[in-house]
Amino acid sequence: MSEFLHEECGVFGIHNRDGSDISIRMYYGLFALQHRGQESCGIAVRRGNEIVCHKGMGLVAEVFSPAVLSGLNGSAAIGHVRYSTAGRSVYENAQPIVTQYSKGAISIAHNGNLTNADRLRSELSEKGAIFQTDTDSEVLAYMIAGNRVKTHSIEMAVAEMMNVVRGAYSLLIMTPGKLIAARDRFGFRPLCIGKIGGSEVFASESSALDAIGAEFVRDVLPGEIVICDATGMRSVTPNPPGKPSHCIFEYIYFARPDSVIDQVSVYEARFRAGRLLASVHPVEADAVIGVPESGMDAAAGYSHETGIPFVRGFYKNSYVGRTFIKPEQSMRLEAVGIKLNPIRGTVSGKKIILIDDSIVRGTTIAHIVGMLRKCGAKEVHVRISAPPFLYPCFFGTDVPTGDMLIAKANTIEQIARQIGADSLGYLDIGSLSRMIGDEKHEYCDACFSGDYPKGSVDDKEEPKKQ
Amino acid sequence: MSEFLHEECGVFGIHNRDGSDISIRMYYGLFALQHRGQESCGIAVRRGNEIVCHKGMGLVAEVFSPAVLSGLNGSAAIGHVRYSTAGRSVYENAQPIVTQYSKGAISIAHNGNLTNADRLRSELSEKGAIFQTDTDSEVLAYMIAGNRVKTHSIEMAVAEMMNVVRGAYSLLIMTPGKLIAARDRFGFRPLCIGKIGGSEVFASESSALDAIGAEFVRDVLPGEIVICDATGMRSVTPNPPGKPSHCIFEYIYFARPDSVIDQVSVYEARFRAGRLLASVHPVEADAVIGVPESGMDAAAGYSHETGIPFVRGFYKNSYVGRTFIKPEQSMRLEAVGIKLNPIRGTVSGKKIILIDDSIVRGTTIAHIVGMLRKCGAKEVHVRISAPPFLYPCFFGTDVPTGDMLIAKANTIEQIARQIGADSLGYLDIGSLSRMIGDEKHEYCDACFSGDYPKGSVDDKEEPKKQ
Amino acid sequence: MSEFLHEECGVFGIHNRDGSDISIRMYYGLFALQHRGQESCGIAVRRGNEIVCHKGMGLVAEVFSPAVLSGLNGSAAIGHVRYSTAGRSVYENAQPIVTQYSKGAISIAHNGNLTNADRLRSELSEKGAIFQTDTDSEVLAYMIAGNRVKTHSIEMAVAEMMNVVRGAYSLLIMTPGKLIAARDRFGFRPLCIGKIGGSEVFASESSALDAIGAEFVRDVLPGEIVICDATGMRSVTPNPPGKPSHCIFEYIYFARPDSVIDQVSVYEARFRAGRLLASVHPVEADAVIGVPESGMDAAAGYSHETGIPFVRGFYKNSYVGRTFIKPEQSMRLEAVGIKLNPIRGTVSGKKIILIDDSIVRGTTIAHIVGMLRKCGAKEVHVRISAPPFLYPCFFGTDVPTGDMLIAKANTIEQIARQIGADSLGYLDIGSLSRMIGDEKHEYCDACFSGDYPKGSVDDKEEPKKQ
Amino acid sequence: MSEFLHEECGVFGIHNRDGSDISIRMYYGLFALQHRGQESCGIAVRRGNEIVCHKGMGLVAEVFSPAVLSGLNGSAAIGHVRYSTAGRSVYENAQPIVTQYSKGAISIAHNGNLTNADRLRSELSEKGAIFQTDTDSEVLAYMIAGNRVKTHSIEMAVAEMMNVVRGAYSLLIMTPGKLIAARDRFGFRPLCIGKIGGSEVFASESSALDAIGAEFVRDVLPGEIVICDATGMRSVTPNPPGKPSHCIFEYIYFARPDSVIDQVSVYEARFRAGRLLASVHPVEADAVIGVPESGMDAAAGYSHETGIPFVRGFYKNSYVGRTFIKPEQSMRLEAVGIKLNPIRGTVSGKKIILIDDSIVRGTTIAHIVGMLRKCGAKEVHVRISAPPFLYPCFFGTDVPTGDMLIAKANTIEQIARQIGADSLGYLDIGSLSRMIGDEKHEYCDACFSGDYPKGSVDDKEEPKKQ
Repeated sequence: MSEFLHEECGVFGIHNRDGSDISIRMYYGLFALQHRGQESCGIAVRRGNEIVCHKGMGLVAEVFSPAVLSGLNGSAAIGHVRYSTAGRSVYENAQPIVTQYSKGAISIAHNGNLTNADRLRSELSEKGAIFQTDTDSEVLAYMIAGNRVKTHSIEMAVAEMMNVVRGAYSLLIMTPGKLIAARDRFGFRPLCIGKIGGSEVFASESSALDAIGAEFVRDVLPGEIVICDATGMRSVTPNPPGKPSHCIFEYIYFARPDSVIDQVSVYEARFRAGRLLASVHPVEADAVIGVPESGMDAAAGYSHETGIPFVRGFYKNSYVGRTFIKPEQSMRLEAVGIKLNPIRGTVSGKKIILIDDSIVRGTTIAHIVGMLRKCGAKEVHVRISAPPFLYPCFFGTDVPTGDMLIAKANTIEQIARQIGADSLGYLDIGSLSRMIGDEKHEYCDACFSGDYPKGSVDDKEEPKKQ
Repeated sequence: MSEFLHEECGVFGIHNRDGSDISIRMYYGLFALQHRGQESCGIAVRRGNEIVCHKGMGLVAEVFSPAVLSGLNGSAAIGHVRYSTAGRSVYENAQPIVTQYSKGAISIAHNGNLTNADRLRSELSEKGAIFQTDTDSEVLAYMIAGNRVKTHSIEMAVAEMMNVVRGAYSLLIMTPGKLIAARDRFGFRPLCIGKIGGSEVFASESSALDAIGAEFVRDVLPGEIVICDATGMRSVTPNPPGKPSHCIFEYIYFARPDSVIDQVSVYEARFRAGRLLASVHPVEADAVIGVPESGMDAAAGYSHETGIPFVRGFYKNSYVGRTFIKPEQSMRLEAVGIKLNPIRGTVSGKKIILIDDSIVRGTTIAHIVGMLRKCGAKEVHVRISAPPFLYPCFFGTDVPTGDMLIAKANTIEQIARQIGADSLGYLDIGSLSRMIGDEKHEYCDACFSGDYPKGSVDDKEEPKKQ
Repeated sequence: MSEFLHEECGVFGIHNRDGSDISIRMYYGLFALQHRGQESCGIAVRRGNEIVCHKGMGLVAEVFSPAVLSGLNGSAAIGHVRYSTAGRSVYENAQPIVTQYSKGAISIAHNGNLTNADRLRSELSEKGAIFQTDTDSEVLAYMIAGNRVKTHSIEMAVAEMMNVVRGAYSLLIMTPGKLIAARDRFGFRPLCIGKIGGSEVFASESSALDAIGAEFVRDVLPGEIVICDATGMRSVTPNPPGKPSHCIFEYIYFARPDSVIDQVSVYEARFRAGRLLASVHPVEADAVIGVPESGMDAAAGYSHETGIPFVRGFYKNSYVGRTFIKPEQSMRLEAVGIKLNPIRGTVSGKKIILIDDSIVRGTTIAHIVGMLRKCGAKEVHVRISAPPFLYPCFFGTDVPTGDMLIAKANTIEQIARQIGADSLGYLDIGSLSRMIGDEKHEYCDACFSGDYPKGSVDDKEEPKKQ
Repeated sequence: MSEFLHEECGVFGIHNRDGSDISIRMYYGLFALQHRGQESCGIAVRRGNEIVCHKGMGLVAEVFSPAVLSGLNGSAAIGHVRYSTAGRSVYENAQPIVTQYSKGAISIAHNGNLTNADRLRSELSEKGAIFQTDTDSEVLAYMIAGNRVKTHSIEMAVAEMMNVVRGAYSLLIMTPGKLIAARDRFGFRPLCIGKIGGSEVFASESSALDAIGAEFVRDVLPGEIVICDATGMRSVTPNPPGKPSHCIFEYIYFARPDSVIDQVSVYEARFRAGRLLASVHPVEADAVIGVPESGMDAAAGYSHETGIPFVRGFYKNSYVGRTFIKPEQSMRLEAVGIKLNPIRGTVSGKKIILIDDSIVRGTTIAHIVGMLRKCGAKEVHVRISAPPFLYPCFFGTDVPTGDMLIAKANTIEQIARQIGADSLGYLDIGSLSRMIGDEKHEYCDACFSGDYPKGSVDDKEEPKKQ
């Protein structure tokens, strides 16, 4: 269960051409992306030459009330949901950011992670910049503002910025005249284009288009800048794109299963992962069980491939909110157990295949295996629908560092023993291309393989296989 | 999807014998029963001769903070989660109720519905009673207080009350000296006994025992009164019990699948319902899909019986909280669609069997069928894992009245047409005994059959088949 | 500074004859009485045969939002503000209480304190009553409900209740047909009648009439029952009234200075108290200073009588709200000093007369005297505009018990020394009649004199001079 | 009643030398300055090389809980309370601001108003600056950051900034190594130095020193920069100071009466204003009444000079909080009347002198005069303890613009008629020097006289007498 893995963000934007209520569409669009970030959220709306913004800590349904939304209509809007690592969970870092620069107002919403942000930040500081947040968005805003003085359009300023900035970013940028979408030249993080009425819509995932009844048009391409203004929508790709390197973990875990990302259905990729896993690591058993929710779709695929029945293994208590009190260790109750409870009848006396999408530290899966044994499971065979995590991600996935990764220092057999499984099997790296049905290998699997796309990180800090 | 059906409540209690932290156990116990009522909740704790109570509107995790819990320790406790019909959703009706009567403090938590409450209420009023709530618990408190003057023990007063009160009730009663559990003579609503350390635990469902690590002991029997005091636990059954009539809808929808109620596993009953449905209403198809979450377990059973693959049909957005803004009809967005989105690849071009546990008005299932068709489903065959609702429930299930029930005025064919299904099949009443594996027919299926257990309602207002 | 003295409550009611917005008038009426109770408040409104009630912990402006008020219109209303002693500060005790009895709905709001409540409560318990609050109002509701069965009108039931109940009460009672005001036979607590448009208004103080633009009509008389119904307003006095015994402390401290109570202006009484104090305890000085706010009006009177200038001695920080963090003793900062700061220039090198209305424990006044000395006051002469507290109040004033009262165990000289004053003078009991200009002595000064009005407390618990 | 006049801010800072709990001192210091701004507040604390900041909308006692304060300890701190004009009341504008620049963290808290901020802002924008707030503090941070690159110390950077920036500012600046206080070269806004233990304290008003038990040392001088670091406290005045021009309105209205600002006691200035007013505009009357709270101290002075008794005219309801519902005009209730109620006995049949400190639009005083007449006042003579407002303030006082000022377009007689007064008298400009006892005329009275201190505003936008 990927409780240690986090996406960094989701973005959503509308260039409104028909006077519709933009605020409620923004609301449902961001709500559909809530799984990409639950820490804070915000909507910035263009009204004439002004940009009005409302942000807050918490979920979309908490931050935006009907009263707030009624003050957020306009001719265009961009929005953001954010996850962040501990310690920087402050209002200041909520997005979109809105600033005034020499040409007026500009607002930016950003999903991804720059790999040369520190260097850029310090270069800007030397020229007098002051930083009020920890976000890459602020760096991007400075660079666009700086470039804009020297160029004749905002898209040129964005293009120059893209030439300097390294790493992963799917961006929405809004000015009094334009709404711009841009994706880094590797296309790490998803970003797609939709249409509703005559209005253009941009979203991190296609399922957010579905949520407002918009039609999917296409993905924004790696290195592409899409500009919406009064004259319509147009596209430029000013810098040479890199080899497409879509994040494989969007398919494995991050994205909604009902999304289609860069032409691949997320659900189908997961289902295929389960089938592939079954053929690589078959085992005789009475039932296939998925860890809710992260292992469910691969479990369905495993069952389909093997004919072993796919049954419910657990009840998941979904009433866990922000104020839920987690049990302390001294209570001998495990947080996992309060949230998940095995279905005794499904498990007792049975040989179980337990499917999940990843193992990070191993503590959670160990606890789940333990619960199954306590309920009388005869055998528990753990199958993971992805290869083991071994390398850090520089592109917006918050994978724990080396020591936290059980696969780093242990063999498969050692891990199996530690988590109490009768056997353990991971999907192999070689199966990933079949999983997403992409023979051209246009994805990034560096967290598993250590193969970082060439040119994706600052040459001064290029990572090596560790 | 049973969005029109609601359980009335859940109860949880602990008679503490070892000085453990009772408040945190109460918290996790009630949290495990949250599905039985989300409107309000409360915990009453005994401290010497006093009873301290904290109640509030909202979820367990909202009402109880660590600070509040730290003030709720003691030698025994009872708690409650409540659902209520609109209009009476007020703090005053939250439970447990705590009152002072001639012998001191008494607290009551109640799950169920009395069928002669109005008559009892008016008889009490004639003797000078004043009512500050709409709850049956207040009526029960008056009756116990009135009986107690004439008897020599609280359990005798409870016994006399049970002799007069009609309908469904699973009760927990706490006084300075005792903690008492009682179940009406038909055993409509569930109530079971657990043990942790030397302490007795009572819960509406066995899964709440699991949540605190307590061991299941047995169900409280119909008509039984279980008394815990300083001398231990004992049981009396002062009035002749009726024919056991456990609510069939606990198995079909209300209870957690990981609960075992009156010796029947809820998950297995649902799985069997799906298998039975498959044998009664078979159809050729490419995939079996369950409506989340209510249809999932029967869908697994249907798939198991037929070999047709059980696949995920929808993504369910679980970030819907209390403050979520529902789309207005004018937006042409359906609330259902915002919460549920079909997985296009699973559905497009396929013949689908769609499983749910009930149809009330038909609007929700119609919308879901419509979404599947819009995603390109070739055929949609709806199968319902219970018989049609035709009769009112007097025992604590909030089934809508006649006009709201689509099955009341329409044939199966008419319903199928209205909801847009290619075919529709309900489980038949005859299969229910096989569903719960109970040949002695010790359950109540009056909402389907109109056969109300004899003597279960006040003779002055005995319901008839309509 | 009377921080240890508290009024128990305030009541406000309207019998609406012209379809005006009753909720907003109730709001401003209660807001005007906020000084009488800040713990909780509530408004009960009659709508046809139903009574709708909204209550909450906190101030009127916190508990009632525009949205809540919009749901509180109707043909009559009663409201309440409450203060309570620690430990019983719970929602359950908020008023008005609303109950159902044999004749329908009834709501009661109560200011005062019954002296035989315990006995009544236990008598009612013996007959089967259960008590869900600690309030006298619940006792009154039971008694009225019990009497109503035996009589032919609600006012007769109230009259019989008044015949049995002992102590202080100013009551508002609302039923589907009537709004009734009643005052105990001694008239301890204030209650007056006003008129706005054709509607009758009842209020604890006349200033609440001013707040809604209502005209003062007259005080409710001791022992009187005033009934408003469809036929108009009428009055009965079914039981023989006692000797009027209006609470002297309403004039000294509790009531707003702009109120006129039982025909005496509160401000003028306080001003006269200062004048009388000057003639009884004169002293040469440079300035008269009042302790804000409790000593200000008497200080003006003292200055007026003596010609010694009345100047500002302190700045009072009024931003102290519910969440203000009081300094801990370890900080060597006193809560008093954070809230009050002396005006150095007024005090330094001066002989000061410092006026307050009472001394309870002496700690607060000692601290204030200390602050003046620290600012360079040459002499500080403390003058108290009331006699020393020596006896408990049974009629709704929360005077601390014996040990907390500095005057109980110390001579004037000892107190002066303890509080650091150069001299100390109290108003004498003999001056009280001149203070309120009432030669007939129709007030209660038992807290000073120990002379409890004859028949005011239960004969079984008649207090004695201690 | 100066309800249309607002101070812009207050600042408070501590350079902690003895490890005391800095957070609670900051809390009480800001609490003491709450009258200077109620919109938002914040505290920034230095911890090693980091600066931690907590800000929020609302009052000090609302924004800072014990839990928040416990996270705000460190070796130095600066804090801020803010008032702002409508429309910019957003979290982003709360202070202190904290930014990262090339040399590390810096935090700024600012009271005042720059007169060339727009020009500076646009010059900075041309060099690539982006602005995330509307505050002058952000401009100051940019300038200091820009200067710091070219100079060898932060105080030199501040000095150069002061050379360029025009207008009013009292500043606190905190870096990892220093805490710096600076005041513009005219000394418009107050700022003083205190001492507690070995620690230096800075505050907008001396009363904030009193609140934490700190000793007053001296005022920061116009143009002075005071630097606290590990080596102690030192002072530089790098730029030639202007003619001291302390804001006269601090004495008339803004400051707490218990403060001493630039060696003048605020209370005494107000008292003297009343005495001067009496000698300039005497009138026969029965009583002197002050409008609470703004007219109270001048009323005491007027009474002292004339011997006419100073009595209480009104009860002021102080329970008006953030959520108080103001009466709508349609209710024929005035907000003023709900908050202020005349003491009838003081007023009825009397000739009244009513004292306030200013008239802005005239509507409030007209309503107050009307209330007195309705209560039977025979005559009402209004006396204002300051000259009429005629000119805009550029230095941090939010005086309404021309059309809102009744004195702008009306003669004294016309104003008297409009507000319903029998006579009206303002303090004359000539008396102001006697009011503050300052023969050297080291104050700014431009809002009355139009004489803006030479060089105080940008030469490109120098205001003229209008």
